[in-house]
Amino acid sequence: MQEQYHSRLNELKKHLENQNVEVAIIKDPKNVFYYTGFNSDPHERFMALVMDLRKGNQYLFVPALDEEIAEKDSYVKKIVTISDELNPYEVLKDTIDGNVGTFGLETKVISLYQHAQLNHFFSDSSYLNIGDFISGQRMKKSKEECGKIQNAIHVIEKVMAEGIKKVKAGMTEQDFTAELEFLMRKFGASGPSFSTIVLSGEKASLPHGRPDHKTINQGDFLLIDMGVIVDGYCSDITRTFVIGEETPKQREIYEIVKKSTEAGVNACKAGIPIGQIDIAARNVIKEAGYGQYFNNRVGHGLGIDVHEEPSVHENNDLIVESGLLFTIEPGIYIPGYGGVRIEENVYIDEDGKGKLLTSFPTELIRIG
Amino acid sequence: MQEQYHSRLNELKKHLENQNVEVAIIKDPKNVFYYTGFNSDPHERFMALVMDLRKGNQYLFVPALDEEIAEKDSYVKKIVTISDELNPYEVLKDTIDGNVGTFGLETKVISLYQHAQLNHFFSDSSYLNIGDFISGQRMKKSKEECGKIQNAIHVIEKVMAEGIKKVKAGMTEQDFTAELEFLMRKFGASGPSFSTIVLSGEKASLPHGRPDHKTINQGDFLLIDMGVIVDGYCSDITRTFVIGEETPKQREIYEIVKKSTEAGVNACKAGIPIGQIDIAARNVIKEAGYGQYFNNRVGHGLGIDVHEEPSVHENNDLIVESGLLFTIEPGIYIPGYGGVRIEENVYIDEDGKGKLLTSFPTELIRIG
Repeated sequence: MQEQYHSRLNELKKHLENQNVEVAIIKDPKNVFYYTGFNSDPHERFMALVMDLRKGNQYLFVPALDEEIAEKDSYVKKIVTISDELNPYEVLKDTIDGNVGTFGLETKVISLYQHAQLNHFFSDSSYLNIGDFISGQRMKKSKEECGKIQNAIHVIEKVMAEGIKKVKAGMTEQDFTAELEFLMRKFGASGPSFSTIVLSGEKASLPHGRPDHKTINQGDFLLIDMGVIVDGYCSDITRTFVIGEETPKQREIYEIVKKSTEAGVNACKAGIPIGQIDIAARNVIKEAGYGQYFNNRVGHGLGIDVHEEPSVHENNDLIVESGLLFTIEPGIYIPGYGGVRIEENVYIDEDGKGKLLTSFPTELIRIG
Repeated sequence: MQEQYHSRLNELKKHLENQNVEVAIIKDPKNVFYYTGFNSDPHERFMALVMDLRKGNQYLFVPALDEEIAEKDSYVKKIVTISDELNPYEVLKDTIDGNVGTFGLETKVISLYQHAQLNHFFSDSSYLNIGDFISGQRMKKSKEECGKIQNAIHVIEKVMAEGIKKVKAGMTEQDFTAELEFLMRKFGASGPSFSTIVLSGEKASLPHGRPDHKTINQGDFLLIDMGVIVDGYCSDITRTFVIGEETPKQREIYEIVKKSTEAGVNACKAGIPIGQIDIAARNVIKEAGYGQYFNNRVGHGLGIDVHEEPSVHENNDLIVESGLLFTIEPGIYIPGYGGVRIEENVYIDEDGKGKLLTSFPTELIRIG
């Protein structure tokens, strides 16, 4: 375990040296977790991994109230605590000391305000973006990381299997969501990896709708999109069920989406532009005449964050390589009617082959 | 309901005009909700309320997959959808058209990357921070907003009351958390307002610890810090219980924290610097000789976000006024021993008096 932090930090350090970065400030809490093992949401408080390449020092800055956990969990052992009444940038200035020519910053994370603070205390500094390098590092998952995601998938598939036994026509989406989230904790998740989506009937046409007091009715599609965090890693799967018996039209739509997901999964392999995977799945829906009802990307990377690199959309020409792990989740969403989405998780293994990590059946299942 | 969005936008518009802002881009999803009623987490996708004061137009930019919900929920009716393959800043340029002298931006929200994108498409623009004005607007809650938070408090207090009936020595923190979160949904919450904290025994000394497989044991302190979101507004309360019977030391610590919370609540009124509320609560703990075991601020604002303005810490000289709503949550945290926190929610009413919104008993309750 400690070994992995060492090698991740070393890889980053080499990159920073090549770029002549003198001090790197890593603020995304998930990036901090990736390099240190300390997993915390500081909310609006200041937390950062600071690498001072001038002096060879590494520090973890944490809110004072997180000191005890940080000391226990962090691979980086120099912990600097910041009480609520202090200016963290002043503490940073006092800690690392001296002038800094070039900072390395995650430019998608650092706000204009934070940058202005930094400028105030380090006035003659410039900065380089290190966020893309970090995303690239995180995008390539080791076997161990894939194993952790596989654990999170096992848990969510158990939740799916046990959860659907509890659905009955007449139940509200909200109450059913309560049952699912209860099972997540029961089966060992530290929580959902995103806000659980349970949508019935015509609401299933909303790709990002929310469960509410709507009743789940006989004949409804029931779309369940959910994931959990286990040991800091996420899963994210979707299945669509039918309450009672499906109509021919429901069956038709379902089978198209099923084929689309399969086409996406089957297209996964190293060496091709990732956009081709999107296109493979999308074409099935287009060719069946439902193209207008599917207007979002086919998938996204999955790891410490539930949405991370790579983005699986048709214009992305990133070349697929070993270690990538992402979702394939096409759907057909017909406003006022309903929708179907089937979502799998795929890992590109060391041989460059797409390995399907999800195993929950994709056949249309009647429940309730 | 529609009236409130109108008046909030109008107030903001006046401010922007005074500052000679030509186009405001509001990106914080919670601010978008505050002004439009559209409540969505776009994750990494682009979502923004855009106010073009040059032409008197207002737009809501949303990811394509959110179009249907946005059209239904948003007070701002010009919806611009952005598909995953488009550059949102280019869509923005095409939509608002023409040169912009000064943008209004939330500088704590806009990242360096986003600002660079904006600069690319609007090259001769400068910007002003509008985030503090917005936080100030949101900080002052109307009676209606206070009513919504009160609803979220009712739900979480019901969860607390029903939840503690389920605790038994030998149960894990994780399993008990599952029961609590199940009740949240059951009682009508759309979800927890933050990651539920259930800490037993010596773990209760970690102000931000997490529930895990640790067993809740006889004689343990059991600290429960939780909240829910109802109708977009948050609650956040903490109570500390004892499993079985308390020791004299546990009783001593508990009573000090209870007095400290009461002192904080009693200090709440309009016209004083808010830091005095922190000091009132903190002094009780200091005078009892436990000052070293309490090193974070006494409270924080509560509303659409679970942490928002104002920050209740000793150096904040903001003058308390009607409409403020915040937590009072002092604690004593003794590493290796355990801890106690008691957290209330207070509203400064139209007469400038502190109104206690929480009603769950603060006496030490023995459970299990």
